[in-house]
Amino acid sequence: MRSSLGPPLNLASGRVEMAHGAGGRAMAQLIDELFLAAFDNAWLAQGNDQARLTVPPGRLALATDTFVVTPRVFPGGDIGSMAVHGTINDVAMSGARPLYLTAGFVIEDGLPLGDLKATVDSMAAAARAAGVAVVCGDTKVVERGQCDGLYINTTGLGVIEDERLNISGDRARPGDAILLSGTLGDHGMAVMSKRENLTFDTPIVSDSAALHDLVAAMVTAVPDIRVLRDPTRGGLAATLNELARQSRVGMLLTESALPIRPEVRGACELLGLDPLNVANEGKLVAICPPEAAETLLNVMKGHPLGLDSAIIGEAVADPDRFVQMQTALGGRRIVDWLAGQPLPRIC
Amino acid sequence: MRSSLGPPLNLASGRVEMAHGAGGRAMAQLIDELFLAAFDNAWLAQGNDQARLTVPPGRLALATDTFVVTPRVFPGGDIGSMAVHGTINDVAMSGARPLYLTAGFVIEDGLPLGDLKATVDSMAAAARAAGVAVVCGDTKVVERGQCDGLYINTTGLGVIEDERLNISGDRARPGDAILLSGTLGDHGMAVMSKRENLTFDTPIVSDSAALHDLVAAMVTAVPDIRVLRDPTRGGLAATLNELARQSRVGMLLTESALPIRPEVRGACELLGLDPLNVANEGKLVAICPPEAAETLLNVMKGHPLGLDSAIIGEAVADPDRFVQMQTALGGRRIVDWLAGQPLPRIC
Repeated sequence: MRSSLGPPLNLASGRVEMAHGAGGRAMAQLIDELFLAAFDNAWLAQGNDQARLTVPPGRLALATDTFVVTPRVFPGGDIGSMAVHGTINDVAMSGARPLYLTAGFVIEDGLPLGDLKATVDSMAAAARAAGVAVVCGDTKVVERGQCDGLYINTTGLGVIEDERLNISGDRARPGDAILLSGTLGDHGMAVMSKRENLTFDTPIVSDSAALHDLVAAMVTAVPDIRVLRDPTRGGLAATLNELARQSRVGMLLTESALPIRPEVRGACELLGLDPLNVANEGKLVAICPPEAAETLLNVMKGHPLGLDSAIIGEAVADPDRFVQMQTALGGRRIVDWLAGQPLPRIC
Repeated sequence: MRSSLGPPLNLASGRVEMAHGAGGRAMAQLIDELFLAAFDNAWLAQGNDQARLTVPPGRLALATDTFVVTPRVFPGGDIGSMAVHGTINDVAMSGARPLYLTAGFVIEDGLPLGDLKATVDSMAAAARAAGVAVVCGDTKVVERGQCDGLYINTTGLGVIEDERLNISGDRARPGDAILLSGTLGDHGMAVMSKRENLTFDTPIVSDSAALHDLVAAMVTAVPDIRVLRDPTRGGLAATLNELARQSRVGMLLTESALPIRPEVRGACELLGLDPLNVANEGKLVAICPPEAAETLLNVMKGHPLGLDSAIIGEAVADPDRFVQMQTALGGRRIVDWLAGQPLPRIC
């Protein structure tokens, strides 16, 4: 349909303009030449304001997330790949197989078209690698000085095909084992290091990754997993406090069991942060009956995204629903969620 | 769960802070006291990062839209009600019954909590009136000066229960009738009048409304409707040009058949705008076989949201896919989509 829309977009040196969000010819061209070209599927090509989908039988899982991370590109990922991974993970934490994504862009007037294309290409690559299609989208352009270049909302739809699964944050019971799929704080410290221009002997790389394949292996081996959640904003501490509150239990962690990379620990010390409060984008917490813990751990360790998995503690009866930690020195401390915001715009 | 999160939010004079987006206690409190309280359903109450849903048999329809309208409150609606209506309409234009919405908020640090609550209450009222549940959400807070107070993404999921329906923008054929469900330009001019502080004898009120009930009546009466689309950004002109391009047809409109309120026509003249380029938020275009046009028109006129419906023209064979209009003076002019952006941030 080239001819009806004028000369092609100048992806090398052009910029997004207000007209690209106005619903007219410029927007149609941006959609055709940038979004359709990258995501390349029959649903988008149909050009309707909604995608019509067929889904296998089962319960559905629906999740939404908006990404405002700064800087938009960081070691190990960018806002585009993260927008795909993050929402896939929220869908997958129900035990669902993610199928479809929507993408809503808010773009700042003046953003180089090349930057937008790089982001969209990164989203498309991440979606393709995960076997998920971006089936509909929306584009808004706002004035200069707003939205810091680009915000992206993704919403994900998946299907829970196994009727036996009942994975929910309110299902932890005293005695259950708490497992973690790998090292803590990599994403948050990768973004902070980039933002603060810190350099280390061993560079810190975001763990941003789609976890649905790991989850599929886990629920196949242990269908009675009680809880799955990815410890993103607020880190492991926030996630465990949420889960303790939902399930009305306490939790007791073993500090020495927590996998943390030395370079992440070092960067945290430098910035006065606790790795337990730092965001992850490719890790999950699983809670399961104690008798299934070893089986689950072995499945997790056998997956490329779970090599550093560990049993990190257990749920305990506690009317106060405290998350506590047995420290390396033999004491106990309360692991609280942070009251403030030490790491803004991390996702 | 009150006790674990500290004193209640100060909705009268408090403000959103960065901590409300940090994944910690403040965010949990904002979600509990503001979002859960307003949307009030079992999916949100479950407190997971995804909603698990059961959907009746049929194809699904999925649509996403981000709302950045300014001002956030205007005659006839606000960004909250519009975020519900707009996405419901995108879902409904496939013939689907909308079932579920997600909501993604990007909030500016410092936004009064009372403003946020008013918006969320408006969303909740609009969703309830439409019989649609807001089942999951996300909250991000960005620094002052960004996002102009509030952006809202909504994504909608619906089901197309009638297997016979095949409604798509590429299905118009020469000879098909083009119908419009009511007056043009009301939403765009309501927002512009508020923004420009224009006052008229008869105030201009946005037509923002959820059209799924009108659509249900239409597809029941005429299951072979070929095309449905709501003429939002870019107005009727942009929508018809999109459809002409998708369906590879031309279109011929009759100017005298276009319903336009005198006060909207007057405001457009004042601002140098053509009502055909101005956004609507509660109108739809329908294209159907000519023999079904009268039946469809009568069904539309019998619905409260279609009282001013009219047959406004027909699809014609045209290799150039022009949208043309028979003017009131007897001539013909081309109805093009606008190249620029005369009405920024209208939705």
